[in-house]
Amino acid sequence: MAKTDFSCGLDAALAVIGGKWKPLILYHLTYQARRYGDLRRAIGNVSDKMLIQQLKELEADSVVGRLDFKEIPPKVEYSITPFGQTLAEALKPLCGWGNEHMLEVAKMVSRREASETSTT
Amino acid sequence: MAKTDFSCGLDAALAVIGGKWKPLILYHLTYQARRYGDLRRAIGNVSDKMLIQQLKELEADSVVGRLDFKEIPPKVEYSITPFGQTLAEALKPLCGWGNEHMLEVAKMVSRREASETSTT
Repeated sequence: MAKTDFSCGLDAALAVIGGKWKPLILYHLTYQARRYGDLRRAIGNVSDKMLIQQLKELEADSVVGRLDFKEIPPKVEYSITPFGQTLAEALKPLCGWGNEHMLEVAKMVSRREASETSTT
Repeated sequence: MAKTDFSCGLDAALAVIGGKWKPLILYHLTYQARRYGDLRRAIGNVSDKMLIQQLKELEADSVVGRLDFKEIPPKVEYSITPFGQTLAEALKPLCGWGNEHMLEVAKMVSRREASETSTT
C-alpha cells in the first residue's frame, strides 16, 4: 500500500501533524511568529536536532514559514502559514479536551510511569 | 520537568492520543466495537506487536475497553469507553480537515518521499 492511500481524513491529517512535536509547534506559533530560541523555550523538553527536523518538515509541507533576517548574530523567525492556520483551527477542540481533562490525564500519566518503574 | 506538567491542553491530549496508531484506533472504534482481527485489517499497515501495545495503553488510560468472551478460538472485542468518546469527538475536526485537504496532503507526502529517495 502506498503511503498516500489514506484510509480516512484523520490518516491524512496525521501525515502532516503526526510528528511528536508538531502539534505543539503549531500551537506555539498560532498567535505569534517566534524566533527559534523563543520557540524552543516555549516547547520545553525537546532537543535542537529534533526541533529543527520537525520545523523543516513543517516548512516543506507549507504549514510553517521561515524568515531569515540575514543578520549577525543570526535572526530567524518562524510563523504559521494560512494553510497551517486551518490545521491549527482543527486542533483547537483537542486542545480544549486536554484542558478539560488535564487533572485526569496527569493522574493517568503518573500511574503509567509508576507501573513502568515497577516492571523494570 | 515532570512529564505531568502540561504546558497546554494539547500537551495533555497528546499524552493520551499521541501514539502513532492511537488516533486511528479510536477512529475505527468510534461507531462500533470490533474484534481484534477486524480492527487490525481496518487500520492496515501495523504490526501485531505495535497494535497490541497501543491497545494496552489505551485500555490502561480508560479510553478503550476490552471484552474477552473466554471462547475457543479466542474472541476478544475492543470498544470505545464514554471517556474515549469525548476524545473521539475532539478529534473529529482534525478528521474533517484531512478529508478537505486529502489531495494536497497526498501530493506533499509524495514529494517528501521523492526527496527522501533522491537524498539517500
